[in-house]
Amino acid sequence: MIIDIHGHYTTEPPAFHAFRDKQLAGLADSARKPTTTDLGISDETLKKSVEPQLKFQTDRGGDLTIFSPRAGGMAHHVGTEAVSRQWSTLCNDIIHRICTLLPDNFVGVGQLPQSPGVSPKNCIPELERIVKELGFVGVNLNPDPSGGYWTDPPMTDKYWYPIYEKLVELDVPAMIHVSSSCNPNFHHTGAHYINGDTSVFMQLIQGNLFKDFPTLRLVIPHGGGAVPYHWGRYRGLCQDMGKPPLAEYLLKNVYFDTCVYHLPGIELLAKVIPVDNILFASEMVGAVRGIDPNTGHYYDDTKRYVDQLKGLSEQDRKKIFEGNARRVYPKLDAILKKRGK
Amino acid sequence: MIIDIHGHYTTEPPAFHAFRDKQLAGLADSARKPTTTDLGISDETLKKSVEPQLKFQTDRGGDLTIFSPRAGGMAHHVGTEAVSRQWSTLCNDIIHRICTLLPDNFVGVGQLPQSPGVSPKNCIPELERIVKELGFVGVNLNPDPSGGYWTDPPMTDKYWYPIYEKLVELDVPAMIHVSSSCNPNFHHTGAHYINGDTSVFMQLIQGNLFKDFPTLRLVIPHGGGAVPYHWGRYRGLCQDMGKPPLAEYLLKNVYFDTCVYHLPGIELLAKVIPVDNILFASEMVGAVRGIDPNTGHYYDDTKRYVDQLKGLSEQDRKKIFEGNARRVYPKLDAILKKRGK
Repeated sequence: MIIDIHGHYTTEPPAFHAFRDKQLAGLADSARKPTTTDLGISDETLKKSVEPQLKFQTDRGGDLTIFSPRAGGMAHHVGTEAVSRQWSTLCNDIIHRICTLLPDNFVGVGQLPQSPGVSPKNCIPELERIVKELGFVGVNLNPDPSGGYWTDPPMTDKYWYPIYEKLVELDVPAMIHVSSSCNPNFHHTGAHYINGDTSVFMQLIQGNLFKDFPTLRLVIPHGGGAVPYHWGRYRGLCQDMGKPPLAEYLLKNVYFDTCVYHLPGIELLAKVIPVDNILFASEMVGAVRGIDPNTGHYYDDTKRYVDQLKGLSEQDRKKIFEGNARRVYPKLDAILKKRGK
Repeated sequence: MIIDIHGHYTTEPPAFHAFRDKQLAGLADSARKPTTTDLGISDETLKKSVEPQLKFQTDRGGDLTIFSPRAGGMAHHVGTEAVSRQWSTLCNDIIHRICTLLPDNFVGVGQLPQSPGVSPKNCIPELERIVKELGFVGVNLNPDPSGGYWTDPPMTDKYWYPIYEKLVELDVPAMIHVSSSCNPNFHHTGAHYINGDTSVFMQLIQGNLFKDFPTLRLVIPHGGGAVPYHWGRYRGLCQDMGKPPLAEYLLKNVYFDTCVYHLPGIELLAKVIPVDNILFASEMVGAVRGIDPNTGHYYDDTKRYVDQLKGLSEQDRKKIFEGNARRVYPKLDAILKKRGK
């Protein structure tokens, strides 16, 4: 079974964007606020909207995608906490509808109503709702709700602890995932995403978060940002700081996905990161949409790169494609077991 | 000949730090301002202070290091523009003294008196001074003088053009190098440095800087941040934006160093980046100071990794160790030629 742990709903129907426009227009002119949260989107429209994802899933040999709202769309820096809350609820509800309509193809992961400078503990009710009521198996957690100015505390700060306590209690992992950038220095998918991954991993080296949360599981997407490429730097910094060896220190709790869009990158990832910490993902339809003229295949068809890895046992390959996902996302495993898979 | 293009003066004598303390204390209490910029550091003390670098150079088989002030020490975000100017002058002067005392071992690169929100054109006099009077062969240019809040415009903005015009006129390259971080989210060598590299490369994809400056040369240190690991992502983003193929678009002007502290990282770099764009560097004594227990060698002994690269012709190896540096830093080449090298 091939589980893609990182897919975003990037093909929303126009009515969804129209609501967001009205919602944000309402910040400037309350007369323009949407009068209802009923988007008027039919099941048929929803199913049609995810046809691109379904086609890629089929064409590339995938089975199931862990599906979450568009990452760039979370935009926690826009508007107020109340705006973020309404928007997050709506985004999560639409993911839930898609997962209910197409349960064999999609399992849900949610976004949180974060807002810069606002305690993450305000996100607890929505976190409980998406796991307990909507059956989501994880959540995306934005380490920089300011959208590129990084004004909230590092993720090892006690500021974030209420979220971690709830994640542990619910036994769901968080994917560390920034949203769009309002800082012109950072292109969102080309810089802000990768920087977010790198920065949080380094924060985890500096802090000692997993001493307080030994069962917390964090997924660092986009192949771990710059981390595997600079694995020697991170091992060395960890050592210089008098911490335990890096793998021993962090890799019981931290996982990387395979959203790296060329074979040499995936080869490096598999060479330096233990196979138990690598989860298959493509982030389709996502950051890069074109076809690589060097290969004739989509850049984000990451399954092809994993398939080409040499010296990987079939057991290890199965871990990357399925086993690790079922271990890191136990609620996903429970769903699949219930279905006899 | 082995040229290390990225070494910082990280072993300054105590009198140097004492001056800086006084200088910054003077911001709060003008009575504490240093009364002189004569640091009272003898030539003997200076020579002794760089013994660690000289020992590593010899032990590792290096010949010459392009030597610049401590990157984290530039701290452009601290104090005022006047403070930055005084400090930069002093830092550059001390590098000049070392390079004059030990001309076979060190050639100078300078820092600029940048300050957040202050036009880079104010740096022109110091840029001219270090090249024309001190004989420096390049300069470090900080893309984020705010120290981790990224409040100045992207490096493709016309804001930066006066610097580029002068670099082109003087025919010296700039290494894009952030300084320390006052943002607790970013460890300086573990996150801010790498993010800086990644962010600026992405800015260069978005903009079209080399259309206006076809002969400008920029070195992205630390192996290019996350860029080579995500080379597929960057090729794909470039393509999605309708730009020319990435290598053709940027690699006539952009170079990466080899400050990547493990063999798999260097192997990846050499696999995806054309050999003409890779410059040998170690950043010693720098970010990572320990010995890798897996190899028994210093993490930052990057020459060992380059030596271990398979399938590299001797001609290509020579490019990485010497030829590319002489091409990218023509003033260095001129110095070496004058010495009959």
